[in-house]
Amino acid sequence: MMDKFPVYDSNDETVEDLGLKGLQLIQKKTGFRFGTDAVLLSWFTRLKDRESVLDLCTGSGILPVLFAGKSRSSRITGVELQEPYAEMAARSVALNDLEERVRIFPGDVRDLDFLRSLGHFDVVTANPPYKRQGTGLLNPADDKMIARHEITLDLEGLIRGASLVLGHKGRFCLVHRPERLLDIFDLMRKHDLEPKRIRMVAPVGGKAPNMVLVEGLKFQKPYLKWEPQLEIYQADGSRSREVEEIYNEHRDR
Amino acid sequence: MMDKFPVYDSNDETVEDLGLKGLQLIQKKTGFRFGTDAVLLSWFTRLKDRESVLDLCTGSGILPVLFAGKSRSSRITGVELQEPYAEMAARSVALNDLEERVRIFPGDVRDLDFLRSLGHFDVVTANPPYKRQGTGLLNPADDKMIARHEITLDLEGLIRGASLVLGHKGRFCLVHRPERLLDIFDLMRKHDLEPKRIRMVAPVGGKAPNMVLVEGLKFQKPYLKWEPQLEIYQADGSRSREVEEIYNEHRDR
Repeated sequence: MMDKFPVYDSNDETVEDLGLKGLQLIQKKTGFRFGTDAVLLSWFTRLKDRESVLDLCTGSGILPVLFAGKSRSSRITGVELQEPYAEMAARSVALNDLEERVRIFPGDVRDLDFLRSLGHFDVVTANPPYKRQGTGLLNPADDKMIARHEITLDLEGLIRGASLVLGHKGRFCLVHRPERLLDIFDLMRKHDLEPKRIRMVAPVGGKAPNMVLVEGLKFQKPYLKWEPQLEIYQADGSRSREVEEIYNEHRDR
Repeated sequence: MMDKFPVYDSNDETVEDLGLKGLQLIQKKTGFRFGTDAVLLSWFTRLKDRESVLDLCTGSGILPVLFAGKSRSSRITGVELQEPYAEMAARSVALNDLEERVRIFPGDVRDLDFLRSLGHFDVVTANPPYKRQGTGLLNPADDKMIARHEITLDLEGLIRGASLVLGHKGRFCLVHRPERLLDIFDLMRKHDLEPKRIRMVAPVGGKAPNMVLVEGLKFQKPYLKWEPQLEIYQADGSRSREVEEIYNEHRDR
């Protein structure tokens, strides 16, 4: 049996077992690594087996790999601005034998011709950099900096891009910071994505929410449905029942 | 000692002891009665002793009476569209000997000349009818119907009125339904009230929020601060610790 290539660079990278149908993910040791927000976005996103999905700002490709694990969709696409991450994500796809279902493209979501070349999708997801341009401390490592800050990608560029590739009733699912919700609502409406479903995420009950999950539908009438607040931890520091269930959904049975 | 007049009509009205510095409130037996939302809005509203406050859609005058109890403000004003409610609210003010601190006016918040005649305020509050025009079942009792539905008052009229009487950094505090938050944000920004502080209210942990408290500041830069979700009841059906504290704040010591 031939060794699978491509492999990963053990000096610079690690391979994480996702605990979901044997799936694995290559990550940089020191760069941006996926977190709870990616797992929550995968869980929040409703994806039917025949639907196509495009993940913007895909980074290491965690969302496309999770979507391959949780659905039977065979049209899963990830787009990543930074070529080294896009290349690494493509190696994760190959490592998991998912080349026939998952495609990764290096590219810029602000490049509308590039996006049009990808075709249309039923669902678009994004776990973008959180900080507003020109605020917050910058991380000295360049790739982390680009991943965490809207230096090269602003929120409007992202939302415009999502809307461009969605058809009528197409769904856009976003994880972001609660303090940006006003801008998110404004920009989604501006680009024909009506916010229809929302869930705040708090680290623990009694603390302010620090993440928000929003779903917008293309060309739909206004009605915003609020789902119960999700809390990550219980007061004793253990994971909440809901989050345990989310991780179990993403686990082999 | 002379009997206090005006009194209340025991056929049609009840007097509720608010448990706050001996304050009482006259309410209709069968009309719209104040609820948790009014108490939460009073608690959410920061009011310094020297500040003036205007309560729009004041109904029975619950907010002005609570503000008189919780602060030393001597410029507390309530406006109510329905004359019988305005007249009843004025009797509650008299019943509590608050005539020098609290004034009630019948009037329409969409009447900009009327609002201008009231002068400027540091704080405006509103616990308006919740339903959107033309949706929901109508209650057959007319006064309840007007109180609960935006038949005679739409959300934009309310927010425009609030903005009109607020000066620079003036604060507008609103309690409303979460599904209207998109419209609330849109309309507040349209009328120069930047949403700065927000708190979702859920009946119990694990249930979707059914109220939202929002504070907007006039002519201020965007930054939305989220406060922890407030839950009214615990899983066992008793009031939550936070809500007990809110009611205790409103109680004689």
